[in-house]
Amino acid sequence: MAENIDNLKVIIIGGVAAGPKTGATLARRMPNAKITLFQKEDNISYGTCGLPYYASGDVGSFDELTRTSYDVIRNADFFRRSKGFDVVTGAEVIKIDRDKKEVTVKLLKSGEVSNYSYDKLVLAVGARPTPPPFPVAECDNIRPFTRPEDAIYFRKSAEQGQIDKVTIIGGGFIGCEMAEAVVSMWGIEAAIIEKENQLLPYVLDPEMAQLVELEIKKQGVKILLGQRVEQVALDIEEKPEIKTIDGDELVSDFVFLCLGVRPEKSLAEDCGLKIGETGAIAVNKMMQTSDPDIFAGGDCVENIHQLTKAKVYMPMGSLANRHGRIIAENIAGNNVKFPGVLGTFLVKVFDLNVGAVGLTEKVAESAGLKIDTVLGSFADIPDFYPEGGTFTLKMVYEKKTERLLGLQAVGTGDICRRIDTFSSLLQKKGTVNDLLDFEHGYAPPYSEAVDSLHHLAGMVKAKEAGFNFAKAEEIMELDLTWLDVREADEIKSIPWPFVAEEYNQELIRIPLNDLKERLKELDPRHKIMILCRRGPRSYQAAVILRKAGYKKVFIVSGGTQAVLS
Amino acid sequence: MAENIDNLKVIIIGGVAAGPKTGATLARRMPNAKITLFQKEDNISYGTCGLPYYASGDVGSFDELTRTSYDVIRNADFFRRSKGFDVVTGAEVIKIDRDKKEVTVKLLKSGEVSNYSYDKLVLAVGARPTPPPFPVAECDNIRPFTRPEDAIYFRKSAEQGQIDKVTIIGGGFIGCEMAEAVVSMWGIEAAIIEKENQLLPYVLDPEMAQLVELEIKKQGVKILLGQRVEQVALDIEEKPEIKTIDGDELVSDFVFLCLGVRPEKSLAEDCGLKIGETGAIAVNKMMQTSDPDIFAGGDCVENIHQLTKAKVYMPMGSLANRHGRIIAENIAGNNVKFPGVLGTFLVKVFDLNVGAVGLTEKVAESAGLKIDTVLGSFADIPDFYPEGGTFTLKMVYEKKTERLLGLQAVGTGDICRRIDTFSSLLQKKGTVNDLLDFEHGYAPPYSEAVDSLHHLAGMVKAKEAGFNFAKAEEIMELDLTWLDVREADEIKSIPWPFVAEEYNQELIRIPLNDLKERLKELDPRHKIMILCRRGPRSYQAAVILRKAGYKKVFIVSGGTQAVLS
Repeated sequence: MAENIDNLKVIIIGGVAAGPKTGATLARRMPNAKITLFQKEDNISYGTCGLPYYASGDVGSFDELTRTSYDVIRNADFFRRSKGFDVVTGAEVIKIDRDKKEVTVKLLKSGEVSNYSYDKLVLAVGARPTPPPFPVAECDNIRPFTRPEDAIYFRKSAEQGQIDKVTIIGGGFIGCEMAEAVVSMWGIEAAIIEKENQLLPYVLDPEMAQLVELEIKKQGVKILLGQRVEQVALDIEEKPEIKTIDGDELVSDFVFLCLGVRPEKSLAEDCGLKIGETGAIAVNKMMQTSDPDIFAGGDCVENIHQLTKAKVYMPMGSLANRHGRIIAENIAGNNVKFPGVLGTFLVKVFDLNVGAVGLTEKVAESAGLKIDTVLGSFADIPDFYPEGGTFTLKMVYEKKTERLLGLQAVGTGDICRRIDTFSSLLQKKGTVNDLLDFEHGYAPPYSEAVDSLHHLAGMVKAKEAGFNFAKAEEIMELDLTWLDVREADEIKSIPWPFVAEEYNQELIRIPLNDLKERLKELDPRHKIMILCRRGPRSYQAAVILRKAGYKKVFIVSGGTQAVLS
Repeated sequence: MAENIDNLKVIIIGGVAAGPKTGATLARRMPNAKITLFQKEDNISYGTCGLPYYASGDVGSFDELTRTSYDVIRNADFFRRSKGFDVVTGAEVIKIDRDKKEVTVKLLKSGEVSNYSYDKLVLAVGARPTPPPFPVAECDNIRPFTRPEDAIYFRKSAEQGQIDKVTIIGGGFIGCEMAEAVVSMWGIEAAIIEKENQLLPYVLDPEMAQLVELEIKKQGVKILLGQRVEQVALDIEEKPEIKTIDGDELVSDFVFLCLGVRPEKSLAEDCGLKIGETGAIAVNKMMQTSDPDIFAGGDCVENIHQLTKAKVYMPMGSLANRHGRIIAENIAGNNVKFPGVLGTFLVKVFDLNVGAVGLTEKVAESAGLKIDTVLGSFADIPDFYPEGGTFTLKMVYEKKTERLLGLQAVGTGDICRRIDTFSSLLQKKGTVNDLLDFEHGYAPPYSEAVDSLHHLAGMVKAKEAGFNFAKAEEIMELDLTWLDVREADEIKSIPWPFVAEEYNQELIRIPLNDLKERLKELDPRHKIMILCRRGPRSYQAAVILRKAGYKKVFIVSGGTQAVLS
């Protein structure tokens, strides 16, 4: 509790997540500290992550994002009265003097400039939209989606029926959330342009992103992948017109530039604080910058990845809150360390729940790890119980040690539970055997008796026992025989594999229950690719084929659900 | 893969969960083993845990409980064709001869008796209803709820409108599930009689069970706690009539005896296998009985609790499946150990989700552990996002080491995620600090930026810093002043604390935002009990009072949500 350093003067710059969290925690730990938070904007502590849901209309009024759950507005007065620290809004910090230990603050309305001294300073200055790497015309209908005014302006235009068509440049988190916001509520025509060959390119592997793409397309949104934008101009009607490098032209009423964000670092840079290799402010485990009296947290700092030990930039509201607490504890002298990040995220894309934690296959491989992966499809509750969802999981693990490295999840079912459980196992350096020993909560309204995480671990063991699981790219090989072990009704509703006809591959359909009797229909010299809905029947069929002496047997990981759902 | 012991003769007794799982896994590991499963009943591998949902009508036909997700019935033929092992139904094993290594099997239809020899034997014989400790009249309308016929008979009677009133003796899992099954779908009047002073007495602490009781009562079900049944007789109209020791009489059309289950151990006992202190079959970590050639798993065996190392009896379908896998691995020579149990459970009770993992306060204390607890109430997603739920969590931890020991959860919100995460942290010997470092998945449709588990850990730290959290019993003390810091609208909708008037306690209402200005209304000599909706505002109010020099300040853990929701 560090009573000796009570009465400390603490200045916090930035009032969205890390800043207010630092202030509130510190005011509880050191009730006599003099804490002042300066926020450039008029709004403070609004739910930034809620902006897409205000834009979509899910959240009725903007006000709701700035209110407590008991309906009191989080303004300067609230923070002073209820949280025990001072907040000044509309106040831009324009300079930090580390020698004098003071900051220069400009009140934006009056233009008045004053200096304030500090014992400890906290930078929670957040991020700003990544500047587009192409020319963009000046126009209110071409804008990023990072600030309240972006959400408010769009919503107003949509409510007034002024928008028929929106193009979103960038298929990351915000791009995907905005596609839903635009289409679901307002019925506006939408398209996403992404320069990489998949959506969510930095957080999902391609085959998982494909499931998201299918859902978005199903909702009528056009997706243009691998398309670089050359410029966003205005056409003769003053409408935003996007030109791609390939010469395509797209005219819409509104363009969102969802190109990600970059750390706000100018104040830190100007006063000589160390900037990390990712371009964000460098901090140690105590969230201290290169100046021990200056702390930093939230979207302006660099993090260390717990699994690779690499420096990463990971702007997330949940991390910002944890940073804020740790900064407060350390100012209060409690010596608390931030363990680094795992990259946990969740994002809702229309009816799909999408999330991941840890490393993707791509990232793990580029980090030089020797890894393997398994992919499976699941129902989240027993089929007999009504209203269940489904999901597909991809797990990454270190081959030699079987240490868990990452989980990706996409589906209509309960993925949050699996992502959070996996996150805590990653945090505790869990292995594949830990997954087998995981004791999940089971009752039919909530789960299966054997959990999806147990099944993933079981697939690792099956791989070790010599079973082959096929990757998406192998499905396209010409020289193979498809063995579809599903029932007639299932085939009728999902008439896969389409590719068989396209590539002129042999396709044999034998329900699993009849396979033993009809084995002679299969030529053991052929490579056999077994397909079912989710995977377990293919595994069982592979057992039968191997026992009968077939050597070239492959199981389609995750079945039709993983390629088509 | 133990190829050398291939061609093994394996007999499995019991065909619900552990038995079929052993058979299926073993047939994959040792495709040439000769595996035979004997099942006394005609049905096999039905979803036992699904029976309440068949009784309730949520599951349309009984058939659905015996079908695979792709609509094939799991009968003997299915197991032979698809799973690779033989199943004989209607076959009762009446004797095990360990010297000859053979079992005597009686076919129930023909009465035919034969002997079968084994190399390895697996007991997956399950459990039977606990015999009532009071006399019970013979009557079809008085029965346990453990077998398919119980569910089928009840459902038929309910569908025919023959039941107006059901009494459930026993307020454990099945008792609570049946209350919902009876009332929600069929609109039947129901009552629960429980001999302990709370529902779910062995798995929840009293204040958590109270939340479940409130929900059940709200649904119109009568709950009689602390009532011992003296007898269940028939009245003059041949209707079941329950007499309690206190002399009360209850007549209903139907009585369910939900008194729990006991391990089926007669076969094991008869052949001299070791029975454990809990009355279940003793097994080692490899699920081997005292005879190394006989394995046992599922509801007939004794488990070791991972946290207390005590022997416990814990009949759960999810554990039975894990036992089955481990038995198969060990028969195949793969040396896999079962780590013991944590006691994870989930149960749906009307609109409430209820669950726990690890130790309750009661159990931890009776195990001699020096523990402490925190209790908090939460919303599972931000208030601005529509359709969120709420829940109350109680956490038990070891005081000195801060090792996590248990979590209980009750609410309409997403408790499964927290229970599973906590389970994996218990498995990995996690501490309160691990909870603070937990990186949960965050997005407004799914979660708050700061998770409930972080808040629980924060409460532990607040306790260490000298803040007092009040327990339910302290609320009833006469000599105290209530300080309600909620807003007027909240008080109107939940006009707590009722007890203030009842006990003639002082009650002062000051919204948190006004507290600093109105401090003089509070007498510092009084004991002050602060109340809000979920807890955080009371904590904040306690900070303000402590700063102002108040010494006797208490926070009502979990607020009105924890006492009333």
